Amino acid sequence: MVNNLSKENSLINQFISEIRDSKVQKDNMRFRKNLERLGEIFAYEISKKLDYETTEVVTPLGTASVPVLKAYPVLGVILRAGLPFHQGLLNFFDKSENAFISSYRRYHKDGNFEVHIDYVSKPAIENRTLILIDPMLATGLSMGLTYKHLVAEEKPAHTHLVALIASLEGINYIKRNFSNSEITIWVGAIDDELTAQAYIVPGLGDAGDLAFGGKI
Amino acid sequence: MVNNLSKENSLINQFISEIRDSKVQKDNMRFRKNLERLGEIFAYEISKKLDYETTEVVTPLGTASVPVLKAYPVLGVILRAGLPFHQGLLNFFDKSENAFISSYRRYHKDGNFEVHIDYVSKPAIENRTLILIDPMLATGLSMGLTYKHLVAEEKPAHTHLVALIASLEGINYIKRNFSNSEITIWVGAIDDELTAQAYIVPGLGDAGDLAFGGKI
Amino acid sequence: MVNNLSKENSLINQFISEIRDSKVQKDNMRFRKNLERLGEIFAYEISKKLDYETTEVVTPLGTASVPVLKAYPVLGVILRAGLPFHQGLLNFFDKSENAFISSYRRYHKDGNFEVHIDYVSKPAIENRTLILIDPMLATGLSMGLTYKHLVAEEKPAHTHLVALIASLEGINYIKRNFSNSEITIWVGAIDDELTAQAYIVPGLGDAGDLAFGGKI
Amino acid sequence: MVNNLSKENSLINQFISEIRDSKVQKDNMRFRKNLERLGEIFAYEISKKLDYETTEVVTPLGTASVPVLKAYPVLGVILRAGLPFHQGLLNFFDKSENAFISSYRRYHKDGNFEVHIDYVSKPAIENRTLILIDPMLATGLSMGLTYKHLVAEEKPAHTHLVALIASLEGINYIKRNFSNSEITIWVGAIDDELTAQAYIVPGLGDAGDLAFGGKI
Repeated sequence: MVNNLSKENSLINQFISEIRDSKVQKDNMRFRKNLERLGEIFAYEISKKLDYETTEVVTPLGTASVPVLKAYPVLGVILRAGLPFHQGLLNFFDKSENAFISSYRRYHKDGNFEVHIDYVSKPAIENRTLILIDPMLATGLSMGLTYKHLVAEEKPAHTHLVALIASLEGINYIKRNFSNSEITIWVGAIDDELTAQAYIVPGLGDAGDLAFGGKI
Repeated sequence: MVNNLSKENSLINQFISEIRDSKVQKDNMRFRKNLERLGEIFAYEISKKLDYETTEVVTPLGTASVPVLKAYPVLGVILRAGLPFHQGLLNFFDKSENAFISSYRRYHKDGNFEVHIDYVSKPAIENRTLILIDPMLATGLSMGLTYKHLVAEEKPAHTHLVALIASLEGINYIKRNFSNSEITIWVGAIDDELTAQAYIVPGLGDAGDLAFGGKI
Repeated sequence: MVNNLSKENSLINQFISEIRDSKVQKDNMRFRKNLERLGEIFAYEISKKLDYETTEVVTPLGTASVPVLKAYPVLGVILRAGLPFHQGLLNFFDKSENAFISSYRRYHKDGNFEVHIDYVSKPAIENRTLILIDPMLATGLSMGLTYKHLVAEEKPAHTHLVALIASLEGINYIKRNFSNSEITIWVGAIDDELTAQAYIVPGLGDAGDLAFGGKI
Repeated sequence: MVNNLSKENSLINQFISEIRDSKVQKDNMRFRKNLERLGEIFAYEISKKLDYETTEVVTPLGTASVPVLKAYPVLGVILRAGLPFHQGLLNFFDKSENAFISSYRRYHKDGNFEVHIDYVSKPAIENRTLILIDPMLATGLSMGLTYKHLVAEEKPAHTHLVALIASLEGINYIKRNFSNSEITIWVGAIDDELTAQAYIVPGLGDAGDLAFGGKI
């Protein structure tokens, strides 16, 4: 299932317009802040699908019955571009455990590439809800591979894939390879095009570079 | 119209359980942070009701059509208890202009009280959207009077009253005195009882004291 | 005693250059963020003058002797311009109690003005350390009057007056009227001039308007 | 040269007492927030050693001469434990470019270990100021190896090693292997002991687990 949160107009669109805008992007702090605010909103929207249980809370004046989260989801973030977006989700899911994964594209001379994983740090995920975070879902290969790597030995109860901007192709790749009962996709926008180098168009450019500076 | 955001389970309930809990309240920083996070969520939910216009944004790789806010709402905050909640709304409506109002209850020996306004700082609000913020809607007298004071000479296009926790009585007071076309109410919880001193039960105690310390 | 924190080069000067700059000021969120960051630095520098006591802390691996604050200072903020600056101090002194005071200038036709106080909310301050916060120290009249109002019935152990940008005249006014043992002044910059309307030159303009929008 | 920022009492000690305290550590959000606040203070103290140039800034009322940073330092963070501490430095050095490095200890059956590097993402660092961030400096091997890896092909103008808590042994290791002109060490506390497993005592436990949850 795909949840496109920008279908209904809200501040999501305002923030996405700012992170797309090459003039506004010059302010790296605002770029990171927008990713963080969007991460908070995604956390909130996803939280509507989680399980709650009612608990009794003693206030200074009485007792209240309030639903609270049965369990915090595990947050998994793809380095480095995912960090500010993850920060937003962690601001809201402040008691969550976290996985960090780095994967990168190794390009061949012909422009093709393979996705490699080099760094993984993760908590137990067996039978827990997993939220896997990457700002961009381009071909879907990187997200798909990272996901498979994480669940190779443990099966989460359910996984939410979160991408701020996705290509149609990337979404179709995930849909073809994973079932609805296994994975829910959450995006802030769906763009039509993908360049030969697997960049989303119009997209926003390189989210990692815009948040943290270029790399050599 | 009344929007009770806790009807559907979400992180709103998790955060409200924490701000109600007299044990968790001992950490003032977390208390303020919870009000701030709730303010962000309220900003996001209210933003779904605002007007947008599509604009063309130039990204590093192309041009995107994105809806953006036609106009930022004016945020009005009742001092001092409303400040952390307002901070959350301002985090999301970062280009908004802001009104600050202080009103207080002057108690008589018999326990009755009148509401007085002593400090007002406000931008133009004629024909703009106004969001008026107070963590607690108890009798509704204070919110109602503040609102009337703000709109005495200028009429906003529409006003959203935001209260984290409201009493049934307070909501009914607003509904009796103002029309749906004029005011929309947004709350995070509706409590049944109101003490003789106009405290909401179970409520959360004194939001101002919990955020900023007692006053003499 | 006057502590001018910009005498030694540091990020203070970087942040002050941004809040002075009329081009950078167009981003209200960055303007508020800079005031907040400066508030954190002022909190840290003032904290070097406070009293500490050594306590034993149990870590997961042993016991550590660490000095902790004997008591948190009371933070007093002048509305509304002082709020983002105060937020920075509160971020660091997160267990402090807080006073809120509004004072305003009532102008006469001849350009002269008197300072009035209309809103005060304050905790006990007798024998405690007070930090009184206003972004601008222009004539010193407003800060001086607010201070006198706060200490009319209770005497703090010591007061730190904090202003981001001060005029020479304002500093001299405070020095003439209060002793070093009573008040320490902390500033981020000292500007030479004061206009006839009591605006600091070059200053930064109206801090309240830049943080929160104009008022009518 | 070693700068121990806790020699002089300040909020640094207050924050360190909280992150050491196994009771306070139960609140992961506060743990991360304390690392972030400490990161901000370290950024500020290090900024006193950087180079500034005077620039003319146009304010709404005049022109001010203000010193600004000649160049922002490059921030390098060791994953994953360093992230919240790095966030604090990035809050203050908001225009900095960033390097991310993961290194881990590969343990042998006899309890010895080697340090390996698996993920590196870095900007150009030739002739720039580098700030390398890790919350704990235990044996110094990991920090030393990461540093050598970063400077293998490019020489920074100068490097600031930042560790919140260091062991005497770790500091001595860095001093033995690197000159004062090459590296300045910044720490928040120096602990005497190091366990056979290279944990600092009393230290604070595992900073990565406390910030982000355990890993398997």
